[in-house]
Amino acid sequence: MIPAIDSSHLVNMGSARKHADWIAVDWGTSNLRAWAFRDGTAVAKATSDKGMGVLAADAFEAALLDVVEPWLGTGPMRVVASGMAGARQGWREAPYATVPCAPTGTGGVRPEVADPRLDVTILPGLAQDKPADVMRGEETQIAGYLAGNPGFDGIVCLPGTHTKWVHVSAGEVVSFRTFMTGEIFALLSTGSVLRHSVGEGWDDTAFAEAVDDAVGRPEAMAARLFALRAETLLAGLGKGAATARLSGLLIGAELAAARAYWLGQRIVLVGESGQVSHYANALASLGAVAETADATEATLAGLAAAHARIQEQS
Amino acid sequence: MIPAIDSSHLVNMGSARKHADWIAVDWGTSNLRAWAFRDGTAVAKATSDKGMGVLAADAFEAALLDVVEPWLGTGPMRVVASGMAGARQGWREAPYATVPCAPTGTGGVRPEVADPRLDVTILPGLAQDKPADVMRGEETQIAGYLAGNPGFDGIVCLPGTHTKWVHVSAGEVVSFRTFMTGEIFALLSTGSVLRHSVGEGWDDTAFAEAVDDAVGRPEAMAARLFALRAETLLAGLGKGAATARLSGLLIGAELAAARAYWLGQRIVLVGESGQVSHYANALASLGAVAETADATEATLAGLAAAHARIQEQS
Repeated sequence: MIPAIDSSHLVNMGSARKHADWIAVDWGTSNLRAWAFRDGTAVAKATSDKGMGVLAADAFEAALLDVVEPWLGTGPMRVVASGMAGARQGWREAPYATVPCAPTGTGGVRPEVADPRLDVTILPGLAQDKPADVMRGEETQIAGYLAGNPGFDGIVCLPGTHTKWVHVSAGEVVSFRTFMTGEIFALLSTGSVLRHSVGEGWDDTAFAEAVDDAVGRPEAMAARLFALRAETLLAGLGKGAATARLSGLLIGAELAAARAYWLGQRIVLVGESGQVSHYANALASLGAVAETADATEATLAGLAAAHARIQEQS
Repeated sequence: MIPAIDSSHLVNMGSARKHADWIAVDWGTSNLRAWAFRDGTAVAKATSDKGMGVLAADAFEAALLDVVEPWLGTGPMRVVASGMAGARQGWREAPYATVPCAPTGTGGVRPEVADPRLDVTILPGLAQDKPADVMRGEETQIAGYLAGNPGFDGIVCLPGTHTKWVHVSAGEVVSFRTFMTGEIFALLSTGSVLRHSVGEGWDDTAFAEAVDDAVGRPEAMAARLFALRAETLLAGLGKGAATARLSGLLIGAELAAARAYWLGQRIVLVGESGQVSHYANALASLGAVAETADATEATLAGLAAAHARIQEQS
């Protein structure tokens, strides 16, 4: 069992020994986060905006070196990466493991590198045949949460750009479903006519009412969205209320569709704190109590568990 | 009654008399279309990409002159404009008429102009108090359709960026509802992760199945959307099939929500022919037969009806 790692107490690398024991990487579509581990603890963190989305396959190694070079020694440094680096458009495709299976039960792929100081393993994502679904990165967070909560049986919900609802039992991912709620919120807020209606601020009542509306009649989404714009024009709807209502409509519709996942289940929310609290409030309004877990800690614990397994196998 | 105008037979302005009798303008968010009328017929057409969205209030007159100057005489030319020129961010705000009311029952506003050859009237849009809703431009198309079909009692559906479902009875708009279906399709197709899945082509079967899925369980939208991406990755879903399915999911959800508008009603679809045929097919799969009417003809007939009324009042 890997203990949960509290990332709020990162310290600078000591001067006595510069290099890390190993390096953990979470490589997303829009950014890259890396941590230097020493003696079982993350002791330094570095980030970059070189996400998978802006990198050609031959540019990943240099992007990684830009971030982790200060932590390298003279010999090969083990780097364990989760996320989109393993996508088809990533560094090297890490084939999906198919559920039901353990969240990170397989070894991953090792991209070729030019720099002999790098020894990189990219962890695979998970796939589901029917309904077709995929994840890359969240499986590592689930593994990390399970490392700290080995007997967990229930639902892990990971709010984000592509929110995942994941049924976990006996250490395995049984099934999951992805909702594009976060991406749709971002697109509507910035790219649609609603960008004139939303803005700074938040209104808890507007959010709760919108969740209730959407759960009750989720099909009316496209009309309720335009009503936000119309109420701005006709009734002076404030930007904070409009933002909260947009979020509530989208999360409410998601909860209506994901009911089989959360109704009567133990639920843990793993994600960014603002999003997690919106989901927790929406679930509470439907009578469901959700626990929460820190997303970064889950990521680090998951990468550490994968590193330990790789060490055992080598 | 204004006869429908067949815009497919526009002729060049004759050399004997250069100027128009009056000018019809449909000023949208992204473009501007103008027609020169002579002897009750549209004899020339001109367009520009100077839509409301790219114009400050003081730039509308010049944008209009760029398009219509060849048709002006020496005296004031009457210009009748519908659409977003009358929005709050437009040339001059034309306050909404509130339903129930005739689609273009009021006179509109006359922006100040520097060029004495222009005499511009901007027609008002329609607003609805509850649920809050607005339209600008579609009311003129409805008026034009009614000019050619004065006894019409039923539903006018205008597919587009913001699709309108409009209940018309006794020459008045009784109620209406706007769905952001077209804008959501465009955003998802070009700005979301689904842009990698959609593309050229179309698959009627995929469209029909998606309509059926969405009507049956419209709340699952955000999950079904991500499944498009997953099926591309896992099952080689083709771009045409993905495009058709995305369209079918969004139109199906709209039809589920708009059921009170179309079920058991006389329906006429007014819009661009591709969109109209998708809506007609989706409605047919639900057992509803829709008539169709040409959108440009409806626009021209509506502007001509407004022009006739303005002439009577002056």
